Amino acid sequence: MPASYAYLGPEGTFTEVALRTLPETATRELVPVVSVPAALDAVRGGEAEAAFVPIENSVEGGITTTLDELVAGEPLMIYREVLLDITFALLVRPGTAISDIKTVTAHPAAQPQVRNWMKDNLAEDVIWESAASNADGARLVQEGRYDAAFAGEFAAEKYGLVPLVTEIHDAENAQTRFVLVGKPARPAAPTGADKTSVVIWQREDHPGGLMELLQEFAIRGVNLVLLQSRPTGTGIGDYCFAIDAEGHIADRRVAEALMGLKRVCPEVRFLGSYPRAGVAVEDVRPPRSGTSDGEFVAASDWLARCQDGRF
Amino acid sequence: MPASYAYLGPEGTFTEVALRTLPETATRELVPVVSVPAALDAVRGGEAEAAFVPIENSVEGGITTTLDELVAGEPLMIYREVLLDITFALLVRPGTAISDIKTVTAHPAAQPQVRNWMKDNLAEDVIWESAASNADGARLVQEGRYDAAFAGEFAAEKYGLVPLVTEIHDAENAQTRFVLVGKPARPAAPTGADKTSVVIWQREDHPGGLMELLQEFAIRGVNLVLLQSRPTGTGIGDYCFAIDAEGHIADRRVAEALMGLKRVCPEVRFLGSYPRAGVAVEDVRPPRSGTSDGEFVAASDWLARCQDGRF
Amino acid sequence: MPASYAYLGPEGTFTEVALRTLPETATRELVPVVSVPAALDAVRGGEAEAAFVPIENSVEGGITTTLDELVAGEPLMIYREVLLDITFALLVRPGTAISDIKTVTAHPAAQPQVRNWMKDNLAEDVIWESAASNADGARLVQEGRYDAAFAGEFAAEKYGLVPLVTEIHDAENAQTRFVLVGKPARPAAPTGADKTSVVIWQREDHPGGLMELLQEFAIRGVNLVLLQSRPTGTGIGDYCFAIDAEGHIADRRVAEALMGLKRVCPEVRFLGSYPRAGVAVEDVRPPRSGTSDGEFVAASDWLARCQDGRF
Amino acid sequence: MPASYAYLGPEGTFTEVALRTLPETATRELVPVVSVPAALDAVRGGEAEAAFVPIENSVEGGITTTLDELVAGEPLMIYREVLLDITFALLVRPGTAISDIKTVTAHPAAQPQVRNWMKDNLAEDVIWESAASNADGARLVQEGRYDAAFAGEFAAEKYGLVPLVTEIHDAENAQTRFVLVGKPARPAAPTGADKTSVVIWQREDHPGGLMELLQEFAIRGVNLVLLQSRPTGTGIGDYCFAIDAEGHIADRRVAEALMGLKRVCPEVRFLGSYPRAGVAVEDVRPPRSGTSDGEFVAASDWLARCQDGRF
Repeated sequence: MPASYAYLGPEGTFTEVALRTLPETATRELVPVVSVPAALDAVRGGEAEAAFVPIENSVEGGITTTLDELVAGEPLMIYREVLLDITFALLVRPGTAISDIKTVTAHPAAQPQVRNWMKDNLAEDVIWESAASNADGARLVQEGRYDAAFAGEFAAEKYGLVPLVTEIHDAENAQTRFVLVGKPARPAAPTGADKTSVVIWQREDHPGGLMELLQEFAIRGVNLVLLQSRPTGTGIGDYCFAIDAEGHIADRRVAEALMGLKRVCPEVRFLGSYPRAGVAVEDVRPPRSGTSDGEFVAASDWLARCQDGRF
Repeated sequence: MPASYAYLGPEGTFTEVALRTLPETATRELVPVVSVPAALDAVRGGEAEAAFVPIENSVEGGITTTLDELVAGEPLMIYREVLLDITFALLVRPGTAISDIKTVTAHPAAQPQVRNWMKDNLAEDVIWESAASNADGARLVQEGRYDAAFAGEFAAEKYGLVPLVTEIHDAENAQTRFVLVGKPARPAAPTGADKTSVVIWQREDHPGGLMELLQEFAIRGVNLVLLQSRPTGTGIGDYCFAIDAEGHIADRRVAEALMGLKRVCPEVRFLGSYPRAGVAVEDVRPPRSGTSDGEFVAASDWLARCQDGRF
Repeated sequence: MPASYAYLGPEGTFTEVALRTLPETATRELVPVVSVPAALDAVRGGEAEAAFVPIENSVEGGITTTLDELVAGEPLMIYREVLLDITFALLVRPGTAISDIKTVTAHPAAQPQVRNWMKDNLAEDVIWESAASNADGARLVQEGRYDAAFAGEFAAEKYGLVPLVTEIHDAENAQTRFVLVGKPARPAAPTGADKTSVVIWQREDHPGGLMELLQEFAIRGVNLVLLQSRPTGTGIGDYCFAIDAEGHIADRRVAEALMGLKRVCPEVRFLGSYPRAGVAVEDVRPPRSGTSDGEFVAASDWLARCQDGRF
Repeated sequence: MPASYAYLGPEGTFTEVALRTLPETATRELVPVVSVPAALDAVRGGEAEAAFVPIENSVEGGITTTLDELVAGEPLMIYREVLLDITFALLVRPGTAISDIKTVTAHPAAQPQVRNWMKDNLAEDVIWESAASNADGARLVQEGRYDAAFAGEFAAEKYGLVPLVTEIHDAENAQTRFVLVGKPARPAAPTGADKTSVVIWQREDHPGGLMELLQEFAIRGVNLVLLQSRPTGTGIGDYCFAIDAEGHIADRRVAEALMGLKRVCPEVRFLGSYPRAGVAVEDVRPPRSGTSDGEFVAASDWLARCQDGRF
């Protein structure tokens, strides 16, 4: 029995398309599940080797369900990320003309990405109804419940529909980022273009509190690529911060920054170091002067000599 | 014709309850609208004097629709905020017993706040269906579409339902924060317990970039109460930051921090200074030494004397 | 009676040479006095319009007597600075050969600048005796007390001596910096290449205390060119800091930094803004993005619009 | 032959008194030498095991000769420091009355500490002549060259003089700090009240440059007790910084700060970790939260678990 990957289903969604870009999926059983929590629970419960879920999109921002699941509960780790360009097709039953469309459907997350297009191209009184997923919306069109669905073009065939319009996306560069999540284990070796994800809690609320935490990265030349606040659930205004930083926990500058945070934060949760999607190794900026592994090692050697009085 | 306030409807939601805590609503026409964008558009279009919408809740975090509407489009300003404790009642048609419940409904935002309660108190196979609002869920129960609705207890009477269980809330201290938003005008005078909201964009991505922006607050002793990143829509990883800081734009330390941000950020959007809900003036920490208005004025006088050579 | 400038005498020292590079000395009476305190007291007492004294040299560092006099007592201000290349000549009575020299003299400050030269060029057993000034050393050679004096070549004629060797200077780029000091008055207008001098006292001793003070400059893009600690006289380890920063008190970034210091330091003493010697206007780096006067004014305008609700 | 300690002589100076407070001097030969450079050269050349020299006094600040000798040349290390209260006696030949005094002498460093006393207690026309040391001044009085000498009371007997006035000191709390310097070797073990001395050079001159270096200490909770700038000798305005920090190189927070400096500075010179004079272990503040050795070790363990995926 092959190991299985649970992913946010149903089949025929962007998530599945993104997942299939990972080479190892060829040898895994891919299991659609109904929700992000269900996917992660499958990992925690041992039914799945890993879960593949969306975590950020360029229009809506962080996918809070995924973030909140990673922030709380039994620890999980991110092993891979995938970036997928998101463009929608308007899927209809064969024979439907654009002027026939009175009702459309899709997952609510699709709405901000097609809202302007709808205003410009569909009748003003067209009715939008939410579907559980874009694929499910397509199914409902197939069943005749709605006239049209916004979904990935790849979903048309499965549901006997045709793409009336393609390449629909209100925002340029619309992308969704997905992560492959598993139980904690040794992170993959650095590739030279890596990211490290971590969640930090602040000890107390005082002027400059968050700034001091960010300083742990800044002073060591570690660039942040994402900072998202998430409520801790203990009351309004109590937030933790999910941070994505450039570099790998095996990089000395990243390791020292993480240890610095561990010392000053009441809690730090390491979410993994993994290859950064969409960034080639040759495009990675060299570390700032004084923060390369070689410089860390040289400084460590120097310190040892000072401690021994040999200099 | 009285001035009107548009609010996220329908009637009978937590939003309406929160809105009615504002004394001036006695002399305003309160108009429920279907969505946050509709409420803000009513203000922008001049049909409403102000809009009242949720902006943050202690379980889900920032209400992204509201944030994104404030971040983009024609500028608006926040004039008031209201904090409301959120607890749900399970509303049913008279005569329904808890064991009769096969289907429940509510707005999706309610789900994380009642999920654990459901697990512990309802049958495992009970079906959850999302409603457009909690009040709408109650209406659907009245119509017989579902067996029970999670909603504010106050909604029962309007829909001929009875509260089978009350005080349901998975998280302690569950609260939602609402804001009253209008067209830009002179902010209300400081009360001594104020907040200032601002959105900042970062010029470039380098180690310490965000830290440098937060430094503008920290060096002047201005405490941050909320920092949320929101995608700019220009591509994955491009974020602006919505910040709530303690103090009023009329406070010299806040004013200087805002000017500092204005100089180093490509864009800063001022969202208003307004009384801070839930914090009494006597509970506000005095400003850090060197950051009171008196000290700013004294330093300014001293500088003038230096520039004149009189010292 | 022309206004007079007191300078550290006697005549024939480097100080006089440096002073005479100031054009206005043509119309002033130049009065040599015996010490830096005497020169500054002449200003404080009203006997001299200004005093001209050394404040820093590239070999010995800050001239502590001058710094301490400016730090304490009745306030004074720096109006001009002069940089002078320092090279020594070995002055002897006519007829003296280098092998005849058994004793040499000069002001103690000269010693570190000629020490290596002496080791290489004079007999090992030559005796050094300190003189009250380099010019006084020359006088003592004239009188026959010593065989040779290190002094400026310009001093030879006055004392009937001849320069046996010239261009003596152990360190390359040996320079001394002099300042023209007067009673407080309005600083001269900015030239575009200016410096501002200030003395700051620290409120308390905690990790990062000095760093926080320097941050007042750094966050506003003001570069420091000199930082010297001087004892406050209240006990070992109690220091104040004499700071030279790039820019003029009329520059908004400098003014705001000074006010910031004034607010957080128990005491700040402004020592003046004046043209920077040795730096041409065209070689001055433009202010860091966000710190020019124009950007300060624009931010101030923006703030006023925010405060008025006009944006 | 016992190991010898060279000290700034001659006998009978404050330096000798301070040196004799060290218990180990009972078993060492104490050798007075004519200058600080001579004392340090004796160590570098192997003729002395250690040198004992003044490094700071509360009136004059850093003893620049000592600092400059430690900053340049073959590396040396500080092993001990001694704080000595400095009060002067006015020494005269037996029979001299205060009204007989026409000339006084002492080392130039004594002058700022007795200047006010002289003004109040001696005739206005009394003549001050500098001596090579305070002890040498006493000798010159013995020889009849001058009428009185300012020196330590302990010097009277040796030169057949009597203390006419004692406890002379213009400033309260006048102290001089001395250091025992030797060739580099393993620093003594931490006592709990230690200091670490280091010299740092700055890579480039930009706004915030020095602040960034001080940040290496601040972010790790290491308090600075002294910062002195010394010219590098390469031109006016080029300075290095001699820094005394609280703590021992064996403290993890100090070690990490030193490594941080080593990475970002073109040069760092470690001058030793040694017991702090005048501070009892029980008066040392506990390290700031997050900076104790225990917290460093715990963070290091946590990092290792993250790197192994065991958490």
